[in-house]
Amino acid sequence: MDTALIILGAGMGTRMNSDLPKVLHQIAGAPMLVHAMKSGGALNPDHTIIVAGHGAVAVEKAAKAYDADAMIALQAEQLGTAHAVAQARSALDGFDGDAIVLYADTPFISPETLAAMSAARLTHDIVVLGFEAADPGRYGRLIMKDDQLDRIVEFKDATEDERAVTLCNSGVIAANARSLFALIDAVDNNNAAGEYYLTDIIGIARNNGLSATVVRCDEAETLGVNSRAQLAQAEAQFQAKARAEAMENGVTLSAPETVYFAHDTVIGRDTIIEPNVVFGPGVTVESGATIRAFSHLEGCHVARGGVIGPYARLRPGAELSEDVKIGNFVEVKNAQIAEGAKVNHLSYIGDAQVGARSNIGAGTITCNYDGVFKHQTVIGSDAFIGSNTMLVAPVRVGHEAMTASGTVVTREVPDGDLAIGRAPQENKASLAVKLFEKLRAKKAKGN
Amino acid sequence: MDTALIILGAGMGTRMNSDLPKVLHQIAGAPMLVHAMKSGGALNPDHTIIVAGHGAVAVEKAAKAYDADAMIALQAEQLGTAHAVAQARSALDGFDGDAIVLYADTPFISPETLAAMSAARLTHDIVVLGFEAADPGRYGRLIMKDDQLDRIVEFKDATEDERAVTLCNSGVIAANARSLFALIDAVDNNNAAGEYYLTDIIGIARNNGLSATVVRCDEAETLGVNSRAQLAQAEAQFQAKARAEAMENGVTLSAPETVYFAHDTVIGRDTIIEPNVVFGPGVTVESGATIRAFSHLEGCHVARGGVIGPYARLRPGAELSEDVKIGNFVEVKNAQIAEGAKVNHLSYIGDAQVGARSNIGAGTITCNYDGVFKHQTVIGSDAFIGSNTMLVAPVRVGHEAMTASGTVVTREVPDGDLAIGRAPQENKASLAVKLFEKLRAKKAKGN
Amino acid sequence: MDTALIILGAGMGTRMNSDLPKVLHQIAGAPMLVHAMKSGGALNPDHTIIVAGHGAVAVEKAAKAYDADAMIALQAEQLGTAHAVAQARSALDGFDGDAIVLYADTPFISPETLAAMSAARLTHDIVVLGFEAADPGRYGRLIMKDDQLDRIVEFKDATEDERAVTLCNSGVIAANARSLFALIDAVDNNNAAGEYYLTDIIGIARNNGLSATVVRCDEAETLGVNSRAQLAQAEAQFQAKARAEAMENGVTLSAPETVYFAHDTVIGRDTIIEPNVVFGPGVTVESGATIRAFSHLEGCHVARGGVIGPYARLRPGAELSEDVKIGNFVEVKNAQIAEGAKVNHLSYIGDAQVGARSNIGAGTITCNYDGVFKHQTVIGSDAFIGSNTMLVAPVRVGHEAMTASGTVVTREVPDGDLAIGRAPQENKASLAVKLFEKLRAKKAKGN
Repeated sequence: MDTALIILGAGMGTRMNSDLPKVLHQIAGAPMLVHAMKSGGALNPDHTIIVAGHGAVAVEKAAKAYDADAMIALQAEQLGTAHAVAQARSALDGFDGDAIVLYADTPFISPETLAAMSAARLTHDIVVLGFEAADPGRYGRLIMKDDQLDRIVEFKDATEDERAVTLCNSGVIAANARSLFALIDAVDNNNAAGEYYLTDIIGIARNNGLSATVVRCDEAETLGVNSRAQLAQAEAQFQAKARAEAMENGVTLSAPETVYFAHDTVIGRDTIIEPNVVFGPGVTVESGATIRAFSHLEGCHVARGGVIGPYARLRPGAELSEDVKIGNFVEVKNAQIAEGAKVNHLSYIGDAQVGARSNIGAGTITCNYDGVFKHQTVIGSDAFIGSNTMLVAPVRVGHEAMTASGTVVTREVPDGDLAIGRAPQENKASLAVKLFEKLRAKKAKGN
Repeated sequence: MDTALIILGAGMGTRMNSDLPKVLHQIAGAPMLVHAMKSGGALNPDHTIIVAGHGAVAVEKAAKAYDADAMIALQAEQLGTAHAVAQARSALDGFDGDAIVLYADTPFISPETLAAMSAARLTHDIVVLGFEAADPGRYGRLIMKDDQLDRIVEFKDATEDERAVTLCNSGVIAANARSLFALIDAVDNNNAAGEYYLTDIIGIARNNGLSATVVRCDEAETLGVNSRAQLAQAEAQFQAKARAEAMENGVTLSAPETVYFAHDTVIGRDTIIEPNVVFGPGVTVESGATIRAFSHLEGCHVARGGVIGPYARLRPGAELSEDVKIGNFVEVKNAQIAEGAKVNHLSYIGDAQVGARSNIGAGTITCNYDGVFKHQTVIGSDAFIGSNTMLVAPVRVGHEAMTASGTVVTREVPDGDLAIGRAPQENKASLAVKLFEKLRAKKAKGN
Repeated sequence: MDTALIILGAGMGTRMNSDLPKVLHQIAGAPMLVHAMKSGGALNPDHTIIVAGHGAVAVEKAAKAYDADAMIALQAEQLGTAHAVAQARSALDGFDGDAIVLYADTPFISPETLAAMSAARLTHDIVVLGFEAADPGRYGRLIMKDDQLDRIVEFKDATEDERAVTLCNSGVIAANARSLFALIDAVDNNNAAGEYYLTDIIGIARNNGLSATVVRCDEAETLGVNSRAQLAQAEAQFQAKARAEAMENGVTLSAPETVYFAHDTVIGRDTIIEPNVVFGPGVTVESGATIRAFSHLEGCHVARGGVIGPYARLRPGAELSEDVKIGNFVEVKNAQIAEGAKVNHLSYIGDAQVGARSNIGAGTITCNYDGVFKHQTVIGSDAFIGSNTMLVAPVRVGHEAMTASGTVVTREVPDGDLAIGRAPQENKASLAVKLFEKLRAKKAKGN
C-alpha cells in the first residue's frame, strides 16, 4: 500500500530547558527526529512529512540531511495534535494511500511494530498503537468494545472503571490519509486546554461506522522524551539494546555498560571491545578486530585483525586495511592505512595514505595544514618513518624509504632513499653542571 | 540568631583502614569535613569549631584551608560524643547564641534542613534532626510524647515497642550553647562502653522542663561514612544528585553515569557533555560548550562555544575564551587562550598566553621549565605555530607571526615574521634499502 | 590426600558465536580455563587433566602456559559429561587418590568450597557440590534421603515434589579416582540425548552401597558461561568482588564501578584510584600511590608514592620506583624508572633506564626501534632531558647531564655535559604576513 509518514515535531520542549528544538537533541549520535524517520522508513513510505514549528529551519535542515525528499509542513501555532496533523494536508494533496502519524520525540517504535500496524489496516479503518503499561499512571486509555477500539479517553476524563484499564495510548495512529483528514475536520477544541486532540478521531470514526483496532507493542518502544533526564534514559535504553545485540552477534564486550554505540555502528563477529570505548556515527569494524580501552571512533572503517588503542582516536575518513595497528595517543583522520601498517604512538596522521607494512615512528606528524589549505601526505609501502618526523604536505615518501628521526620532510623522498635533516649533536663539556649551579644559585638568592 | 557550628571529627575511622584521618577522605574532590563545613556554612555561623583528634594537625590544615576562621578543639581521648562536644566549650567561652552539632563524616545535611532546625529553635529549647528510616536496624530511636521529643533510646536499650518506632536519630542537634554545655555536664558514662553520649541530654533536658522537638530530613542526608565502601556510596549519592541537577539545568549528559562532577562544578545551559568526563575542583563551563569524551578538567574556565576534547586535559589556570577549541591529547595549564584559538592535537601549553584566532600546530610544546624555574610563553593573535614547534620560554611570538614546523624558538619572533630553524633535508640515495638489508642480514645471522 | 583435577573443557560453546574455543574466552584478563585451574590449584593437586575437544591445540597451549605440568586428555566426540571424565582415565592410570571434576566454563568455584569438598570426602565416598538456587528453574535437583545424597534428577525427569526442591546440582563432584572411573563404566546413554551423564553415577553408587553427600556453596560460585552476555555477567561478578575486596583492604575507589581489575592485580593500602582505570594482568601497586583517571596499566610495578596519570599507559616491564611521576599521554614500556624521576607529558619511554630524580621533558621519545631490532636507552640520575629530545638507542645520557630541547641524541652524553643539536632560529622579516596574504589570495581565487 502507498504510505505517507506524518511525523509531529513542532513542540518547543520547554522541559528540555534548551535553545535547541527538542526533536534535534541526539540519541546515539542522531537527532531524535532521525530515529523516528529511520523507524518509519522501514515502511518504504512514498512521502514523509515533518510537521515542524519551533526551530523549523533547523528541523528542516536535519530532516533533509537524512532524507532529501522529506517535506516540511509548518505548524506556526501549536494548537494540538489534530491541528498538527492537519498541517500535512496540503503536502498530501491528492494522496489516497495510508497515513501513519509518528512523533519525533518518540524515537523507538520498531519497524516490526509499524509493519504490524500496516497489516492491521487491511482489516480495520483505523489502527492505533497501544501498550500494556506497567504503571498506567496518567496515560490515555484505549477502551475496547468487543474486538473493536471504541474510544480513547484521557486520564483526567476517565471513569474509575476506565482508569482500571492498563492498555494505553501511544499516540501513533494509521488510517487512510483522506479519511484521516476528514475525521480531523470534525475534531473540536471544546476542552480545558482549548486544543484539537488527535485522539478524538476514534470516537468520531466509530460514530460514523468506521472500524478501529489496536496493535500492541512493548512499552519500551513508546518511550517519549520531554526532559534531558528522559533523553539520557532513552540513550540508556538504546545502548542496552545495542550492547545485547552485539554480544548476541558474537562480539565480546568485557564491560558492556562502558561501550557506547552510535545508531549505525556495525561490528563484526569475534571482535573484542575493551572497557570505555565510544563509537560515533559511521563506524564499521570487521570481524576479529580488537578495540582496546579508551578508544574513540567516528566515521571510520577497521578491517579484519585490526588492533586499535588503547587511547586511539579514529576520525572520519580513517580507512584501515587488514591487520593495521593504531596505538596509544594516535589520531587518524581522512587517511587510508594499508594492510599491516603500524602507527603505534603519539602521532597525527591526517589527509594521508600509508602503504602496506610501513612503520610510522612515535611522534610523527603529517603537517597537513598551512593555515588556509589542507594537503596530502603519501607514504609508500614498507617505509620506515623515524620518530618525530614532520611530513610537510603535500609530500611523498617512497616505498622502502626511510626518514631519520627528527627530520622535517619538505620534498619527496624517492623509493629506497633515506631522508635526513638534522643538526649534528654537540656535547658542551660540563655545561649542564654549570647551568644547574647557576639556576640553583639564582633560586637560593630569590628565596 | 548568632550561631556556632560544632563539627565532630576526632574519630580514627578504623574501618577505613587508612593512615589518613577519616574526615579527610574525599567526596567529589573535597574532604568530607569540608562538605560538612559547607553545609553548616549556609547558616552563616559566627563560629565554627572542629573537634579533632586523630590526625588533628592535618584536620586543622584542611579546615583552615577552607575557612581561615575555623577553630580547632582538640579531643585527645575519644570518650564519646558528649565529651567531644564539651571540648568546644572554651572556644565558645562567653558565646550565648545557638550551637549546632554536626558530624564531619556525615557530609550531606542540606542547608534547607539546617535552616528548618534554626527555625524550630524559635519554639523549642532543643532540636534534634531525625529521619524516617526505610530499615531502622540498629539506629537510635526518637521517642515522641505528644508533640515533644521525650528521649532518644539506643537500639540495644530499646523495648520491643520502641524498636517499632521508625523515626531515627541522625545525631545532629541544636540548642543554646550555654544550655548545651550545662546539659552535657550532667551526662555520665555509666554504660557498657563507658562513653559519654550526647543523646543522653534529651532525657536530662526533659527532666529539667526544657522542650525538645524533631526536624525531619530525608534519610539520604544522614548518610554516614565509616568504610571505603560507604565512601564510594556517598560519592555515588553526590554524583547522582549532581547529574540530575545538571540535566534539570539544561545540560545534556548522554551517559550521566560516566560523568563525575566536583563539589563546586558549574556548567552552563545547553552544554553537551559526552561520556567519560571527569571534573576536578574549580571548573566553570559557560553555556553552549561541548565537552567531548574522555576529557579531564580541573581548576579551569571554558567560555561559550568552547569545544574540548576528546582526550583533552585542562589543568588549573587554564582560562579559555569564547569558541576556543582544545583537541585530542592536549594538556593546557596556567594559560589564557583567547577567543577562537585552536590547539587541536598532541600539545602541551603551559604558563602561556595564546592570542585570538591563533592556530597551534600538532606537537607544539611550551618548554616552560628549565629544571628550576618556570617561564612564560606569549603568542600573539592570528599567529600560526607550525607543527612540532618548541617554544623555549621565556619567549614571545608576535601577531600574525609564523613558525616553521620543527623550529626551536629561543628568541622573539616579531609581529608578521616567520621563524625557521631547521636542518635542510638531504636524501641519501638507496641508503634505506641498504640499511634494511644490513639489519635483516644481521637478524638472520643472529637467529 | 593425593588429588587430581579433571577439568572438562571440550565443548564448542555454540551460543558464544565464536571461532575461539569457549573456555579460552577471558574474564579479568585470563581465560576461563585458567580461572578454573587457579581455583582447583588451591588443593595442590598432584595431577591436572584438562579434557579438551573443540580447539584442543589452543586449549592445551593456554593450559600449559599457566601450568606446564597440566595434561590434556582429548575428547574427540562430545558424548556427555561421564564420557568426558572417562577420557582422563589413562592420564590417571595407577592413581589411587581423589579426583575432583571441575568445569572450565564455571570459573568461580572458591578454594574454600573445594577444601570443604575435600574434607567431606573423609566421611563420604562421593561428594557433590550443590547450591540453594534463588530460582531453581531447569537445574538438576539434589535429592537427599536422610543425611545422604540419594540421587540427582534432571529437571525434565523430575516429579512435582522433586521440582519443589531448591538444592541444585553444580556438576562439581569428588570421589576416589578408581571408584569414579568404575562408576562411570556403569553409566549408559539410554536417554533422549543419547549422552552419558556424570550425574547418573550417584544413583549407581548408592545402589552399590556407597555413601554420598552434598557440600553447599553460594550460587554465585556456580555461575556458568554459555554466551557472551553470560561472559560479561561473569566479568561483572568478578569485578564487583575485586572492587569490594580492594576497598576492604584500604584502597580508595571513588567510582568503583569504573575500575577494572585483572585476575592477579595487587593494590596496596591507601592507594587512591580515580575513575576509569583499567588494570591488565601482572600489575602490582604499592601503598600510598595515586592512579589518576583514564590510566591503563599492564605487567608493571608502581612503588610507594607513585603518581600515575591521568592518561598514563604503563605497559609490561614498566618498573617504577618510589615517588615516580608519570603524567598525561605518556607511555612507558620495559623501562626502569628510578625514585623521584618524572615523565610528565606526551612521551614514549621504551626499553630504557631512567635515573633517580631525572626530569624527562614533554615530547621526549626513546627511538628504540630501527625497523628490525630494539635498543636500550640509559639515562643517569639528576639528568634533565629537554622537551622533544629524540634519544636514538642504543645511547646513554649521563648523570646530571642535559639535552637541549629539540636535540636528536645519537651518541653518548657524558656526565654533566649538555648535548645540543639544533638549527639556529632565523626570523624572516614579514614573511608570515606575505605568506598569509598569498594563501588567502589563492583561496579567494579558488572560490
